[in-house]
Amino acid sequence: MTERLYIYDTTLRDGQQTQGVQFSTPEKHAIAKTLDALGVDYIEGGWPGANPTDSEFFAEAPKTRATFTAFGMTKRAGRSAENDDVLAEVMNANTPAVCLVGKTHDFHVDTALGISLEENLDNIRASVAHMVAQGREALFDAEHFFDGYKANAPYALECVLAAYHAGARWVVLCDTNGGTLPSEIHDITRAVIEAGVPGDHVGIHTHNDTENAVAGSLAAIDAGARQVQGTLNGLGERCGNANLTTLIPTLLLKEPYASAFETGISKDALKSLTLASRQLDDILNRVPMRQAPYVGASAFAHKAGLHASAILKDPTTYEHIDPETVGNARIIPMSNQAGQSNLRRRLADAGIEVDPGDPALARILEEIKRREAEGYTYDSAQASFELFARRELGIMPEYFEVKRYKVTVERRKNKYNRMVSLSEAVVVVKVDGEKKLSVSESLDESGSDRGPVNALSKALGKDLGRYQAVIDDIQLVDFKVRITQGGTEAVTRVIIDSEDGQGRRWSTVGVSPNIVDASFDALLDAINWKLLHEGVAA
Amino acid sequence: MTERLYIYDTTLRDGQQTQGVQFSTPEKHAIAKTLDALGVDYIEGGWPGANPTDSEFFAEAPKTRATFTAFGMTKRAGRSAENDDVLAEVMNANTPAVCLVGKTHDFHVDTALGISLEENLDNIRASVAHMVAQGREALFDAEHFFDGYKANAPYALECVLAAYHAGARWVVLCDTNGGTLPSEIHDITRAVIEAGVPGDHVGIHTHNDTENAVAGSLAAIDAGARQVQGTLNGLGERCGNANLTTLIPTLLLKEPYASAFETGISKDALKSLTLASRQLDDILNRVPMRQAPYVGASAFAHKAGLHASAILKDPTTYEHIDPETVGNARIIPMSNQAGQSNLRRRLADAGIEVDPGDPALARILEEIKRREAEGYTYDSAQASFELFARRELGIMPEYFEVKRYKVTVERRKNKYNRMVSLSEAVVVVKVDGEKKLSVSESLDESGSDRGPVNALSKALGKDLGRYQAVIDDIQLVDFKVRITQGGTEAVTRVIIDSEDGQGRRWSTVGVSPNIVDASFDALLDAINWKLLHEGVAA
Repeated sequence: MTERLYIYDTTLRDGQQTQGVQFSTPEKHAIAKTLDALGVDYIEGGWPGANPTDSEFFAEAPKTRATFTAFGMTKRAGRSAENDDVLAEVMNANTPAVCLVGKTHDFHVDTALGISLEENLDNIRASVAHMVAQGREALFDAEHFFDGYKANAPYALECVLAAYHAGARWVVLCDTNGGTLPSEIHDITRAVIEAGVPGDHVGIHTHNDTENAVAGSLAAIDAGARQVQGTLNGLGERCGNANLTTLIPTLLLKEPYASAFETGISKDALKSLTLASRQLDDILNRVPMRQAPYVGASAFAHKAGLHASAILKDPTTYEHIDPETVGNARIIPMSNQAGQSNLRRRLADAGIEVDPGDPALARILEEIKRREAEGYTYDSAQASFELFARRELGIMPEYFEVKRYKVTVERRKNKYNRMVSLSEAVVVVKVDGEKKLSVSESLDESGSDRGPVNALSKALGKDLGRYQAVIDDIQLVDFKVRITQGGTEAVTRVIIDSEDGQGRRWSTVGVSPNIVDASFDALLDAINWKLLHEGVAA
Repeated sequence: MTERLYIYDTTLRDGQQTQGVQFSTPEKHAIAKTLDALGVDYIEGGWPGANPTDSEFFAEAPKTRATFTAFGMTKRAGRSAENDDVLAEVMNANTPAVCLVGKTHDFHVDTALGISLEENLDNIRASVAHMVAQGREALFDAEHFFDGYKANAPYALECVLAAYHAGARWVVLCDTNGGTLPSEIHDITRAVIEAGVPGDHVGIHTHNDTENAVAGSLAAIDAGARQVQGTLNGLGERCGNANLTTLIPTLLLKEPYASAFETGISKDALKSLTLASRQLDDILNRVPMRQAPYVGASAFAHKAGLHASAILKDPTTYEHIDPETVGNARIIPMSNQAGQSNLRRRLADAGIEVDPGDPALARILEEIKRREAEGYTYDSAQASFELFARRELGIMPEYFEVKRYKVTVERRKNKYNRMVSLSEAVVVVKVDGEKKLSVSESLDESGSDRGPVNALSKALGKDLGRYQAVIDDIQLVDFKVRITQGGTEAVTRVIIDSEDGQGRRWSTVGVSPNIVDASFDALLDAINWKLLHEGVAA
């Protein structure tokens, strides 16, 4: 017998409290669509009336399968629920569900609100009753509940019981400051259920200030709570909210949860989890966290030599779940800890079959070691690894030849007597026996100098003859520079991430004491990889 | 009565398994120093013999207060511990403690090792006995222990009891695949203690594949384990190890741990935690995670309006600990009250006294905010901060004026038909009314190209007239580059460390989309700071 467990997403409300995050209305629509496709039960859209974006979003609310929910706060003291203008704006959004936050910690009633404990209880009762009277599904977010329970358990319980008896479908226990540890969350959640709020009316809302938001959520579920709140990628105030991108696969795939519960998320939808996580990062223009559980690029990367060789025998030796169940993939990166079997597997992934025992394997490993000592890393530049291996094996086409390049970087006064900088690059290549000279400068559309690498990238991609149509959709999406040895002997490692119109993304590396030279090599690899993968004949 | 709890750091070993991380020997020394100052009990330095870096590091091992530990694996079957060459390399590192990993999961004994269960037990016993006979503190890392226990509890227990009875000071229960949830870790750890390994001989080693590495570690401590393993900033294979940067403050500051345990870390050392975390990111050239618990820049940032106004009344309303206890700081967008006194302290550090209430303070804070949004950071470039503040206050001499510069970077074939690169820089300055043109190229004594920044640095420092004698002893000792925004809008931040003949060392920063331009500004600040501190008259 499985029980129903409800997933409540607050990416669009608490997630917006992340420092540096400010969703636009179209972005809110895009995220709501992603969440709805995933299959969460509730989507909390924001606080109607709190800011222009949220008001606009609710005015043209998305049509979702999930219960679309408006957030607000309980009515203020000294007026009726009907006459509270802040609450009215929330109710006027006309969502099927409304979630109101209220105080349950006596210290906050006193310090932050400055009203009596009884007045606060009345605010809770009247606000919940008002939501119910208006035919909405009513949720009560019990702010600071765990701290409140520790300070004054009878009062904290009185608050949540008042909400429940007034008709709240869910009483959500919030660890607002994020300081409550999982074992306390477990015990206090149990106490709430024992006091009379049934578990299937109890929700949990945690924050990650001790890195225990996921564990705290699981502890509350263990104690009987049947709604869990969180955000995609763990966005949220301070250290973030409970990370639904982690909680969802844990609840669907891991015991005892997988057998005990049913959620609104199908195994099929779960396969889109990695993509959903990346889409959110894309919207926020954030670099995805490599080490993120389940969905990170490193989540199934096996670097240790012992691990890599066992994985080749049986993936369950070093993986707790199959990466495909969450739409992720296994990676066996190259590093000086890897052996020949690891290398063969990597080559096979790139479509290159080499027999075990082929002397080329030892030669390639030797060369990798030599290059890594020079400052190369192929862990994070798989595309360059592939090109390098093909060159070593004599199976890399030579599409074109670089004859020379020259970049000028200049700073001087302009005619208005202001210092300005400008770079200019000339690249000379030979394609099909024909010499081609291209020149570009470093100014972007707004006339700002983007530097020598920008000029070089544009000149290199400007005219490659019959290859031009194939490479035109390449975009440089990330550029990372690392000095691998300190001081005057510094060697620069440049890693460039490129993307094309089909959404393919690949990483290339260049190494040189000269940063422009290192960048040029990484750019060159990026173009060659694209030509190779388009199956262009040399 | 407090009990002793031991902190075991594996940043230099398991942390090195992070995708994209490859420490150099000097970096390992720098990290060991940071860890030792923090006060961890054990520093695991790596695996002697596994790769050239680790071998080199152990050959010139750091002198630490912490117990310096070598990692390796139990002897292989079919030979004695004395005759296993892999184990011999580990023992020959002559560290006071040695930690050997071995199998405890029957499936792995069979699949990965292909030996009998009895042979594996013998390998464990003989290896631990060998460490003890050689006078080392012996640690046994029980790989896949939790999965092993779930598959075959009697055998898994037999393995750890064999290690304990052979004299292991610590039996460390490893959740190698990271898939075990905290409640299971709790129950299985308790079962180990009940089976006969005393809790003060039990360690816990978790991974973050379900985002529960910290919670799993706490669960094991709750069950009686008295050693906890982890890494700074949660580095490690796949999703990382248990994050010591989170665990340490939780154990020192939060109940029930704070009252129950004593560790090697003082309250005073805890105040350096945020700095230690940033230092590691600096070494790895990683952008620090804003949302990191305790040490992240957002960990005490209060964005929600309701939160910020309550915080001003009483910080405990929305903070679970005082940020100063971990060397972090509160951020409240609406108040710069704290900012001004901070700023005055920093100016005083640089020998600049400004009265409280001076309107310049607010102006400088505003300008810092604007520049930080642009990509500047003055935290790691004190010398540039000093020059910037002096310019804002109108007390910075102008020693010379830069009229213009021009750098050429070229790659082409030389007369032997080999590709070579070369940079050349021209700098034009005006000193005491006199225009001076200097030109330098990027070749070092051996004829190798050191790139455009090298050429620029040499040209800038070549002829500054009457200042020349003062700046001749400046050496560029480190050069760090970070891209502060990803993609095509990338902005480059260059930090240059300089040193002079008197052993003074100072750091300067330059920011621009153009990396050469950013470097030039950092070089310019370096020269100006030196002139200022030599008391040269402009």
